[in-house]
Amino acid sequence: MVPALTGVAIPRRGGQTDGMLETLDLTQRLAKKEFREALTRLGAEMQVLQRLAHDHGIPVVVLFEGWDAAGKGDCISHLVQNLDPRGFRVQVCQRPTEEESFRPFLWRFWRRLPPKGQIAIFNFSWYNTLLDRRLQGAVGLHEWEQDLEEVNAFERTLGDEGTLVLKFWLHISKQEQKRRLKAWEDDEAQRWRVGRSNWDRHRRYAECLRHAEEMLARTHTHRAPWTLVEAEDERHRRVRVLEALAVSLRGALHDRGVAVPAVETILAGRDTKPVPAKNRHRDPLAGPVVFPAGSLLARSNLSLKLERPEYDQALAGAQARLRELHFNCYVRRRAVVLIFEGWDAAGKGGAIKRLTVNLDPRGYEVIPIAAPTAAEKAQHYLWRFWNELPKDGHLTIFDRSWYGRVLVERVEGFCRTEDWRRAYQEINEFERSLADHGAVVCKFWLHISPEEQLRRFQAREVTPAKFHKITGEDWRNRAKWPLYLEAVNDMLRQTSTSHAPWTIVEANDKLWARVKVIRTVVTAIENALDDRG
Amino acid sequence: MVPALTGVAIPRRGGQTDGMLETLDLTQRLAKKEFREALTRLGAEMQVLQRLAHDHGIPVVVLFEGWDAAGKGDCISHLVQNLDPRGFRVQVCQRPTEEESFRPFLWRFWRRLPPKGQIAIFNFSWYNTLLDRRLQGAVGLHEWEQDLEEVNAFERTLGDEGTLVLKFWLHISKQEQKRRLKAWEDDEAQRWRVGRSNWDRHRRYAECLRHAEEMLARTHTHRAPWTLVEAEDERHRRVRVLEALAVSLRGALHDRGVAVPAVETILAGRDTKPVPAKNRHRDPLAGPVVFPAGSLLARSNLSLKLERPEYDQALAGAQARLRELHFNCYVRRRAVVLIFEGWDAAGKGGAIKRLTVNLDPRGYEVIPIAAPTAAEKAQHYLWRFWNELPKDGHLTIFDRSWYGRVLVERVEGFCRTEDWRRAYQEINEFERSLADHGAVVCKFWLHISPEEQLRRFQAREVTPAKFHKITGEDWRNRAKWPLYLEAVNDMLRQTSTSHAPWTIVEANDKLWARVKVIRTVVTAIENALDDRG
Repeated sequence: MVPALTGVAIPRRGGQTDGMLETLDLTQRLAKKEFREALTRLGAEMQVLQRLAHDHGIPVVVLFEGWDAAGKGDCISHLVQNLDPRGFRVQVCQRPTEEESFRPFLWRFWRRLPPKGQIAIFNFSWYNTLLDRRLQGAVGLHEWEQDLEEVNAFERTLGDEGTLVLKFWLHISKQEQKRRLKAWEDDEAQRWRVGRSNWDRHRRYAECLRHAEEMLARTHTHRAPWTLVEAEDERHRRVRVLEALAVSLRGALHDRGVAVPAVETILAGRDTKPVPAKNRHRDPLAGPVVFPAGSLLARSNLSLKLERPEYDQALAGAQARLRELHFNCYVRRRAVVLIFEGWDAAGKGGAIKRLTVNLDPRGYEVIPIAAPTAAEKAQHYLWRFWNELPKDGHLTIFDRSWYGRVLVERVEGFCRTEDWRRAYQEINEFERSLADHGAVVCKFWLHISPEEQLRRFQAREVTPAKFHKITGEDWRNRAKWPLYLEAVNDMLRQTSTSHAPWTIVEANDKLWARVKVIRTVVTAIENALDDRG
Repeated sequence: MVPALTGVAIPRRGGQTDGMLETLDLTQRLAKKEFREALTRLGAEMQVLQRLAHDHGIPVVVLFEGWDAAGKGDCISHLVQNLDPRGFRVQVCQRPTEEESFRPFLWRFWRRLPPKGQIAIFNFSWYNTLLDRRLQGAVGLHEWEQDLEEVNAFERTLGDEGTLVLKFWLHISKQEQKRRLKAWEDDEAQRWRVGRSNWDRHRRYAECLRHAEEMLARTHTHRAPWTLVEAEDERHRRVRVLEALAVSLRGALHDRGVAVPAVETILAGRDTKPVPAKNRHRDPLAGPVVFPAGSLLARSNLSLKLERPEYDQALAGAQARLRELHFNCYVRRRAVVLIFEGWDAAGKGGAIKRLTVNLDPRGYEVIPIAAPTAAEKAQHYLWRFWNELPKDGHLTIFDRSWYGRVLVERVEGFCRTEDWRRAYQEINEFERSLADHGAVVCKFWLHISPEEQLRRFQAREVTPAKFHKITGEDWRNRAKWPLYLEAVNDMLRQTSTSHAPWTIVEANDKLWARVKVIRTVVTAIENALDDRG
């Protein structure tokens, strides 16, 4: 059984430590079978809850604090595997930069708050800063009190304005911490994670504990409660985090009067209604689509496919290799920029999900690109993409991209002909800047046939878990295949450069497409790093 | 006579130096009388041009490069004295931060580009970075070529998308540079400006010159031409810069088909038409406004005034002292946050202008606050203000502010009653965070009587230079005096704190108001720094 989420009873005041961390039962373990069952349930639930929170504009802040080596990174990785990567960002907030230290200490956290409908996951937060200051003796008791009040006020105002704030403290014993730090030191691949400061804090475990207990007690509020996590068992802590998030999301949605389907309803696929037969769309596409002979699209073989067993093996292998290379990129400070474009329903989201699922979420971001906001429209069209570039060592995935200029903006007439005509060169130059700086750039066009698209659209209208994925907009776009085809062909012809090549991904078979995408990224990074595994 | 803006004939290619900097006539001087005449003309013209450029959404980039001690700071200070401070930002871009060095080198400049209708003034730009790299021998000839191509592509795409790009190179001779660096060294107040790197570059003047000439020649393009400025004479260089900007703005407006009035028309005040008599507004305010007895507003003496000679002296003295204190704040790393609120037409803009006109523009920013954008609405209402906080040592002026929550949002019903009621505490806490971090916080309510407001509104409808300052919105707000009065009284009562006090500025007399504002800031900084001059 998954342990029930019991409210943590913590006294609200008092300088004395209350020992609530020490009262946690660190021997709790979760068996494999129960873990799997819990995951099936929570995974399905989270998908629905995240979408509802997004649709109802709830901003969510999830922060992870706790002992060194308690498993924060692991919890975050596991958490995001159960989230739509377009809906969260991981914020790593360990040491402030100089720019940041020249502002009130909450400044760098305010700037990283999620907009409505998004989730910000903080790997370290304001608490880490406070605790560090306290441990280093940089603040006296009075300032410490003030600091705690300041973060309480901060979280209260976030909560009052509608932000859901979840705080996790991952707890392990001193013995367990020692064991883990030693294990890391003994492992060549992990040794870099242990420094003198870790051992220093380890030696001062009791002192840390005292300050942490006080901090937790003083900042455990109605609006932003702490969830204490017994973090010695990996399965237990992972489930505990997911469970707490699910409960909170349910609560927040409920407070807003949103009807949230029960877990059983979700699991049975009865949580949404299919499009009524009379409202289903007829195919708006008049006549067959003709691919110009010799074009890249005409030449791609859409019958390529993978069988499930072969897929499972190939996928796992490619993902594992990508994880290694992602880490190597970090060490060697090489940025990776991946661009996903493709026909509606070609499977971009699914491919991105499989690409990222095993990566360290502190090292990548998925940027979904929609119509520009007013502030973005007041700038050069490339401005918002420049702003989102990864820093060296990080990986950024653009789910749709600057190619919107020569695709949707061209076809829909959102810019003048001279604008999109000029854009090919501008885009090539932009990507050249990335490549010259050392970034690995891969661009994917996910290609499906018009017939396959129709099948998928129709399936979305009748498959419970997919109703939300199909709108009138998709059908209207479908009517414009010939116009888009022309735009895509021009784009492929004019922006296929050696420094930022296009890869056409045959995506009639999703399994084939996913593996091809990851393998392409693997090869590109291997070539860039001259690292052939 | 002001020297005509002659096109600079620079060959577009060729590695050889062409000596165009050396051919400049550095002996050019501008007499005081001619300087004054030129300023009168350019000042009036710039006011109109800046407004038109704003209204037609033209983004403007003005960058300053040139020799150390050539007078970049002085040119920028003088330029912005002739601009509406709400329409520009000065971007200081000397050395990249670590965050910035982890991205393609244009990243930090892209992020600082102005949105439509705004002016970004770069004190050092991408050129300084390139030249520095070249001088340090960090790049070979091939990379140097690539760098130059990259910035050309960058400026071309900005220009093609409608940004006006002006580039100034301030030129002085080696002898003059030596004289200035020595003069600085001999002056205790200026000594900090001279370091080893300045002398190093001075010694390598000839080498710098060669690289600079090549860079200028290679990046002097149709879209983004260089203006070479003979910078030895202060008056000459100041006028040259203003003149070049005026010519460029005129050209850009002309290209967009905007009718720009001739200088003579502007000077004669014939550039806009008054509101026709039949369209002028009647006073929408029903009955007299009653100020609650004992309220701060009721107790303020609106008959306070200053005569012109007294004003001139008091203003000059206060401005000079503020300039000193602004610098002292920089040295001692204390931030200053000034908030301006007040009745429509109370004179906020004029007060801000007099406050900033003598300050070093690299050390302050004016943030005009309008209705939040969509991206800002998707965040906590304080988010956009947190984002704009000054870094330590800098001064930020909010022209309207977070108090919009308890003023316009309350009166117009843009938020719920519980939201603005809660806001008093949230705002006090926010300002407490600023004060705790060491910022000096002053809040001004510019107070005029309803009768004085009516006089000003009516004057705006018939005074040529002021037509653009009055809209139907102002008249509609005027009808709501009683509601706003209640909101203002509540605000003053609930957010007057010792760490961020309100100052009621009696503003029926503009001269009195301007001096009071500056003196209040001076006293607040003196107290904070314990520096009584």
